[in-house]
This record gives sequence, C-alpha cells and structure tokens, in this order.
Amino acid sequence: MRNNKIQKLGQKNQQKTTRKYTHKNRNYKSNKKYKNNGGVHVNSKNKTLKIIPLGGLDQIGKNITAFEYGNDIIVIDCGIAFPEDDMLGVDLVIPDITYLKRNREKIKGIVLTHGHEDHIGALPYVLRELNVPIYGTRLTIGLVENKLREHNLLNSVSRNCILPGDIVQLGTFKIEFIRTNHSIAGAVAIALHTPVGIIVHSGDFKIDYTPIYGKMIDLQRFAELGKKGVLAFLSDSTNAERKGYTMSERTVGTVFDDVFSQSNNQRIMVATFASNVDRLQQIFDAAYRHKRKVAVVGRSMVNVVRTATELGYLMIPNRILIELSEINRYADEQLVIITTGSQGEPMAALSRMASSEHRQVEIKPGDKIILSSTPIPGNEKTVSRVINELFRKGAEVIFQDTHVSGHACQEELKLLLSLVQPKFFIPVHGEYRHLKKHAELAKQLGMDSKNIFILSIGNVLEINNKEAKVTGNVPSGQVLVDGLGVGDVGNIVLRDRKHLSQDGLLVVVVTLEKQSNTVLSGPDIISRGFVYVRESENLMDNARKVVQEALEKCQNDNITEWSSIKNIIKDALREFLWQKTKRSPMILPIIMEV
Amino acid sequence: MRNNKIQKLGQKNQQKTTRKYTHKNRNYKSNKKYKNNGGVHVNSKNKTLKIIPLGGLDQIGKNITAFEYGNDIIVIDCGIAFPEDDMLGVDLVIPDITYLKRNREKIKGIVLTHGHEDHIGALPYVLRELNVPIYGTRLTIGLVENKLREHNLLNSVSRNCILPGDIVQLGTFKIEFIRTNHSIAGAVAIALHTPVGIIVHSGDFKIDYTPIYGKMIDLQRFAELGKKGVLAFLSDSTNAERKGYTMSERTVGTVFDDVFSQSNNQRIMVATFASNVDRLQQIFDAAYRHKRKVAVVGRSMVNVVRTATELGYLMIPNRILIELSEINRYADEQLVIITTGSQGEPMAALSRMASSEHRQVEIKPGDKIILSSTPIPGNEKTVSRVINELFRKGAEVIFQDTHVSGHACQEELKLLLSLVQPKFFIPVHGEYRHLKKHAELAKQLGMDSKNIFILSIGNVLEINNKEAKVTGNVPSGQVLVDGLGVGDVGNIVLRDRKHLSQDGLLVVVVTLEKQSNTVLSGPDIISRGFVYVRESENLMDNARKVVQEALEKCQNDNITEWSSIKNIIKDALREFLWQKTKRSPMILPIIMEV
Repeated sequence: MRNNKIQKLGQKNQQKTTRKYTHKNRNYKSNKKYKNNGGVHVNSKNKTLKIIPLGGLDQIGKNITAFEYGNDIIVIDCGIAFPEDDMLGVDLVIPDITYLKRNREKIKGIVLTHGHEDHIGALPYVLRELNVPIYGTRLTIGLVENKLREHNLLNSVSRNCILPGDIVQLGTFKIEFIRTNHSIAGAVAIALHTPVGIIVHSGDFKIDYTPIYGKMIDLQRFAELGKKGVLAFLSDSTNAERKGYTMSERTVGTVFDDVFSQSNNQRIMVATFASNVDRLQQIFDAAYRHKRKVAVVGRSMVNVVRTATELGYLMIPNRILIELSEINRYADEQLVIITTGSQGEPMAALSRMASSEHRQVEIKPGDKIILSSTPIPGNEKTVSRVINELFRKGAEVIFQDTHVSGHACQEELKLLLSLVQPKFFIPVHGEYRHLKKHAELAKQLGMDSKNIFILSIGNVLEINNKEAKVTGNVPSGQVLVDGLGVGDVGNIVLRDRKHLSQDGLLVVVVTLEKQSNTVLSGPDIISRGFVYVRESENLMDNARKVVQEALEKCQNDNITEWSSIKNIIKDALREFLWQKTKRSPMILPIIMEV
Repeated sequence: MRNNKIQKLGQKNQQKTTRKYTHKNRNYKSNKKYKNNGGVHVNSKNKTLKIIPLGGLDQIGKNITAFEYGNDIIVIDCGIAFPEDDMLGVDLVIPDITYLKRNREKIKGIVLTHGHEDHIGALPYVLRELNVPIYGTRLTIGLVENKLREHNLLNSVSRNCILPGDIVQLGTFKIEFIRTNHSIAGAVAIALHTPVGIIVHSGDFKIDYTPIYGKMIDLQRFAELGKKGVLAFLSDSTNAERKGYTMSERTVGTVFDDVFSQSNNQRIMVATFASNVDRLQQIFDAAYRHKRKVAVVGRSMVNVVRTATELGYLMIPNRILIELSEINRYADEQLVIITTGSQGEPMAALSRMASSEHRQVEIKPGDKIILSSTPIPGNEKTVSRVINELFRKGAEVIFQDTHVSGHACQEELKLLLSLVQPKFFIPVHGEYRHLKKHAELAKQLGMDSKNIFILSIGNVLEINNKEAKVTGNVPSGQVLVDGLGVGDVGNIVLRDRKHLSQDGLLVVVVTLEKQSNTVLSGPDIISRGFVYVRESENLMDNARKVVQEALEKCQNDNITEWSSIKNIIKDALREFLWQKTKRSPMILPIIMEV
C-alpha cells in the first residue's frame, strides 16, 4: 500500500480538475458509480467509455490513445514516429490531434507510460496547442523537461511526477500507475478506473524478474485487477511474433563482464541507446569492476547520463566518470567510452568516429567496440556500413548477445493476458501483423474473437460493462515535421520530392513579348540531378531545339494561352527525353513576359 | 572422368584462342609449364599471375574478377549490384571495366559460375564493349540469353555451354568447372590451372548433401585438387558471420508438404526468387502430391519457368501447369499460384495483389501465402509492408522455415578451406565484415595471416608459386545505370538529387534589360517539393521581396556581373528561408536578358 506525495513541478495548473487528485489504496471497487471531482453524477448505465487510438496502430511509434467519458478525456502517451523511407526530407512524424483540439476543454491530462521518443516525442508539438498537465514517473518527466526546455515550453507546462502505485484522479477517471519493466527505467502501465469498469493499458513492457533498477513488473497488481474484473486490456504487440521469453536485462551485464575481462590492453567502446539507463548502469558497473574510467560521448547520451544521475536512476561509481577531453591521460586498458550511434545514424558520434570525422575520438587498431543494440528495421544497412568502417580501421566489433529487447515475447504476453483476463482485448503498439498475431495469441488462450478488437487509428471503440463496438471515426493521421514546418509538407510536396529525387529536373525559361508572344529571350534550359551536363551538351542542345519547335508550333497554330504553351513544351520535351534517356525528369516551363 | 562435348551457340567466335579448347581428364599436373594455344612457351619462373578483383569485395554483388598471365586474361563472372539507398533514381550498378577495355586484346573469355544477377547481370553492358565468348552451364547460359535477347545482343555473342567436370583451355589457362550447390541450379566453382599453380574460385556455394537438381557439390574434386596443391583459393564470404551449417534445400520441401497438407479449402500462393529453380521444383512437386494445379505469375517467374523447363532443370509433372487466366475454373483447394515479389518489390506481382492492383489475381480471406524467402538487407520494411497488407486482406501469411540460404555458413566454409588447403587465401563476395570474418576462420584453421589477403577492388595481387603481394592498382569502381544512361549519373547528379529530395527547390527568374540591368519582368519564384504553396503564400511573397531587395542592392552597388547577382540572390534567399523554415531548398536563380 503506497501513498507517495506526487511531486508537482512547473507553473500552476490551468485546469481545475487536473489539480485535484487523490491517493487511494488499491482496494477500491471498480465498476461502481463514481462521483467525479466536478461533482457530476455519472451513471454507467447511460454512458459509454470511448477508446480512441490516434496513433500506435499499424505502425511502430506515434503512440497516443484518448479515453473519453462524458465530459472528460485523458490521453495516454504522446509519441512521434520516425519518417518512412518515402517521406523524403521529413524529420519526424507526429499524430494528427484535430479531435483533441476540438475537445480541448474536456482534456484533463496526458499520462505517460515511459520516456521513449515514441511515447513522449510529440509533447512539445501537442502541448503548444493543448496546454494540459502531464503525469509520469520522475525519469519520464525529467526527459520530457529536456525537450520542453529546448522548445521554450518549460515554464508553461504543468508536470506531475508520480510513483508506481500512485492513483491520480483526473475528472471521472481514477488513474493508477503500475510498475512494469522495459528498456528504460520508470516504465509504468496504466489502470484506468472508469465508471464502466477497469481499463488496463500495458504501455511498453517486458517481464524482467531480475531488473537492474527498481523492482520487477508488479505482476501481483495485474493479477489482483484481473481477479476484480478488467473490462478491457490494451497490450504491447511489438514482439508478438517472437516465441518464448525476452531475456533479462541482467544477462547483458554478464556478457559485458566476459568481454571486459577478455580485453587486456584494449580500449573498450560501447554504443547503445541513450535512453537505456539500465544498460548504461551495467556498463558503468562493469567498468568499475574492471578498473576502467568511463567517458561519455554524443549529445543525447550526455543529456541522459546527466538527467538520470540527477534523478537517482543511474548510480555512477565514485570518480569513475571522466570528461571526454581527459581520455588521453589514460591508457587504453583504463578506458571505456560510451557513445551514441548504435543505429548507424550518420551524424551520431560512432559514425563520425568510424569515418574519422570526430574531433575528439579516433578509432585505432585494437579498439574493442561493443554494439549493444540491434538494428531497428530499416537501419540494417547503415549499421552494417558503420561495422564495416570500424573493422577496416582495425577495431574488433562485438554485436552478439550484447542486447536484449525491451518488449515482451509471446510467453510474456500470454502471461499478462492470463493474469488480467479482460473481457475485451485490444492489441496495440505494432504493425498490423503484430496486432494480428497478438490477437491470435489471445484466441489461443480461449478468448472469444468477437471480444478482440484490432483497431485502426481514428476508430471510436465505445464500450460499456456489457459490450464494445466501433461506432465511428474521428479525424486521425500523421502530421509531418520538417524543420520548423509542422504539417506544411504533405502528399504534393512529397510527390514532388520523390519525382525530383529519381530523375532530377529541367527548367525551361523563355521570355515572350507581351502582345505578339514572340520570343525575346531563350528558351534556356537548366537541369539539375538529370544528367552530367558537361558530358551531355548534345542532348541539351537538342532539347532546346525541341522546345524551340514547340514554341514555333504554338505561334503557327496561334496558341497564346500560357498554360497551353507550357503544356505543349512539357509534352514535347518529356517525349524527347524519354526516347533519348528513358528518364522522366520534372519539367518546369516558365514564361516571362516583357 | 567426364568428356562432354561443349555445346556452342551463337555466331562464330571472333577470337582465335577462344575457339580452341581441349578436354582433358582431371589427372593432369599443375605447376608445370604449359604450351598455350598461341604456341607461346610460358615460363613460370619469370612471370606472375595477377588476380584483379573489379567487384564483389566490400559489397554484396557486382562480382567480377580478372586473372591475367602474360598476354592472357580471363574473367570470372560479370554481375550487377543493386543501388544503395543514396543512389537516388539509379536502376543498377555495374563494374568499371576500364582495365579490361585497355587490355581488350588479352581477354580470352568470361567464365560464369551461375546465373544470378550479381554474377551475370552486367554482361549486356560489358559485352557491348568487349565482345568475348562466355562460358557457363546450360541454365546459366540460358538465363544470359534471355538478357542478351532483350538487349539485341544475342546474335553477336558467342555462348559456350559446359558441364561440371569440363575443362576448357583459354589462352594459357586451363579452366576446370567443378560442381557446387547454390540457390540456383547449374552452379560451378572454377579451378584455374595456370603456369604458377592452381587457383580455385568457389563461386557462390553451399554444401547440400541432398540437393534437388543434380548431385551434391563435388567435394572429392576439391579434395583432390587440395592434395595436389592449390596455390590460391578465392571463396564466398556471404555467410561467414553465420555459425553452423546451411540447411539443405530439401528441408524447405518438407515444410511445403506440411503447409500444403494443413490447407484444406485454402488457395495457396508461394512467393519466392524466380531464379531458385530448385525451390520451384519443390513447389511443383508438393502441388502434385496434394493434387493442386499450378499457375505462375510475374514476368521473371514466367521466364525462368519456361527457360528451366526447356533446358531440363525443371520437371513439371504432367498437366499440372495451368495458365493464370484459368485459375477461376478451379476451386481454391485445387490451386497453387507461384509469384514474384518475395522481396516486397513494389512493382512485382505479390505487392500488386496485396494492394489490389493486380489485374488477374485478388487476395481473399483464407488465402494461404507462403513467403519462401528472407528479406535481403535493406528490404525488411518493404517486405513487412506487403505482409501487413496481406494480413489485412484476411490472408494467412507463412514465413517461418520456408527458406534456406544458398550460401555456406562457417562450418561449410571451414570444410572447403580444409579440403582445398590453399597456400594463399582470398575471401571474396562480401562486405568488409564478411571478408574479415572469413579471414579469421582461415586463421583459426592454422593459416598464416600473411598468406591471407583481404583485397579491395582494383588491387593487383601478383602471385607466383612462392609468394603473393599486392603490387598496384588498376582503375575500378562502379558505373551507375539509369534508364538508357550508363555512367552519365555520377556524384554531382546524385548530390543534386539528394538535395532536391530533402528540401525541394526554388527557381527565381528575372528578366533584365541588356544595357542597364534594370528589371523588366519578375522576379518570379516557383517552388517544388519545398512547402505546400497554397498555404504558404505569405512566405513566398516575402521571399520575392527578399529577392527584390537583393536586386536593388545590386543596382545600387553597381554589381552587373550575372554570376555575382545570382550569388547575392541565392545567399539572401537561403538565409531568409533557413530563418523562417530551417530548410535549405536548392535555389536556382535564372537571369534572362532582353
């Protein structure tokens, strides 16, 4: 029975309901009528709960789900997705929150399960539009604060730190935080106590009996809730296709120890995800045991080490941490360097070291480099490129058994499903194949397939204590962020970028006399990304002739409308270029008038 | 002891030496002086053999290696590579053959190990420049002929079919073909009997004790050569990082049987690599056993089935093959459809079916779709996209245990190395990490590391019966093919395409009066791929003002040189756009003069 003070940060809350929260012990009853803080009586017979996923389905990332009951909405998570291959030039993808903006007065808060980008990354964009309080564990809030600071939003957002076991009342909802394990510390699942029943959202999770920081996932509480009766369960499907169990984070530490003890006279570098504080802890611990100093490189890594240390999630052994500038004072066998870039990101520290572009660290023969990660789908080739470069510099590269997933595999998913035993099951967090597989697992456990809902984003799943069904849709989708632009890059811009990327462009400029449409200057042709111009003079000369002929044809046929002239130029040129090169560059005819 | 007639096809050979070949039994001595067909005595004490890889190292694909002795060159394989992610718009990559063109009179032939694209794909481009005879097994030559036909080269190239065990004399070289196993039938290794000793090139291989077509790899011959003494061994490194053994192709057939027998009332579709004739054979066989008809879809699949059947590599059970147009005459449980698209290629049949864009086949709920392949690195996401779409259409998708690799894993690599026991070892076919790992395996077997050569393309490894060393470099690299253009897309064009793909472009046009440089028309700004113009009118208006100010500044400062004016416009606009959008589109200032 926990009764922690919720640590509140930032400015005073703007919204009344969000300031009121109560701590209750866990033994309150679900499926009863609640009095919400607004003093409104809610009758479960009349109203339904709406579950509205706005992201996180049919994709990995961009996790965000709204829960609406009467005049109250709470949102679980608010993440980004990384751009797909065809989103050229796009930096990141955030959810379409039109529905939330339309119902802004209902939103009582955003509840965060953990501090990964795909769960918190969209907050700076969403909070700019909806200033609602946020709730999360200390590390989660700490990482969010780093983001808000960068976006100059730190002082305008109310942040509330909770501890696992806490219960927060937001409007009608009693929100209970349940400890889980994941590849970042401070991960929680959410039990939403609503007038229609208990809804459990797993967040991202795995079952780690021997975690590094804190305790194992609170299986007992999941079981207890299941025993009381859980109406609906939303659960992480990321690894639903993987058999068996995910190994404990601790197994990686054992491998580190082995590798460290076989590295006499070698400098050790470890690349991993900055946010995996437990992994960092294990690297520090192994370094300590093997009497090595640790330097940290990469902006996000430095930030996380600082934040996690300040908040007590990372315990750095005494005097082991050194500045990167100090590494030259130590012998190779006295050093461990922790670095970003485990995904082969071209701008991250490891890639820059591998290509000799890093100012402070140079890879040298004999360096032992541990890639403590697996490539995220889509990153296989960039990671491989870095590995090749490291090998070529004479480094030893180790990437086997040096990583474990943060997500539950099939046996763990079945365990949690069996403890929670929900009436309705909604697999979340995954591509369709993962959701589908997770649904199959639930069926194997005996669930009725009509009680399993594979939803799409924007679906409104209405649910009461008897039934659940999809009753409609709300606007949903993705908003592309490119530089400062949020949403100004859409399908048309992407289609043009794609076209330009494949065959480049030709600009055709001609100046016409206003009255007579006679050519005063040009046609000039400028190309980029089409052919190597210096070696294609002949082609470009002929292209110019084609345009000239098209212009003459227009004059002979008395075609004076600009759009017609442009189309005639375009068609003639496209046809000519296709015949000569089998390429279709973008053609931009421009007519100037004097 | 084999003594097959070499089947010769096509026009008469242009080059004398290539017409002369002799069949010898296998028991001739190596390391002896040979009399070559030109009648020139060659003394091994004076000359060295040059091994010159022109592709296939530090990458997967584009396999081509030249072997030069005195006035003779033979080339093993002539493949393409698929473009890297940053080669925007490029269709395929072929080797730079400058060195071969410079030494065209020396080249006696191109010897092919098997019919995969990365070993034969560049032939149409290379044979256009170097008309030399080619040698390969029937299937290899058959697949090459399909290519040559498409490029109108069929009548001008001399093709020579060989059988495993054959020996062909090309100039100084006696070329012996040794049967191997791979994921395509008709694969051979090459033993090159040269004046300095025997050189063995494995080609792509695996060890399959129970192959589908033909016999297992001729391990005895490798052993025999090893016993005689092999000077240098070039061996396939693709799977050098994988432990253990690659499973037999036959294991996939067992899985097919299981899946087929559990598919009552379901239509079955199998997607696989068109070139894997043994896989196709097993699908046909399973279909026959389960009383299903087989239809084939996808251009390359149809071609391979036709070619392989004609050449006797594929035995289609009687009356089992039906036209795709006939599938509606059969019930679902009577059908198997073999399709291309196992790599998620957007234009291949499976992708088009998955997205309902295929004219003849529609995926329906209950269809059972077997992906008999694993994603090639880089294709993970496109494959996953197709799987998601198939699931969403209600199909069942099976992709576990339905594929085996065609390349040897560590235990097989060690076996072949141990049989061949070369003096010098050259790992080939792989990225640096694979070559490095393969070299390590050789060291584990006791090879002296100074006798192991991890080469780069263009390296000239000179070798005699005592020593080997890299003595120089020849031109080498990659030539990009885009449409009809071969080599006209280089770094400048790719850099422009990259730039355009990230942030699009702005074209700024202004017409100036010839003498005074006063503005007669414009400045006009046209953008593509930058922002959604309709919602960014304000930005574009301001951009125009920035250009106007720049032009006024030029006039005030009496700057009349066009290049200076353009640069001033560019700089001002770039600065303005970066401030407003944090994007850097390509800026193309164009000045027209009247």
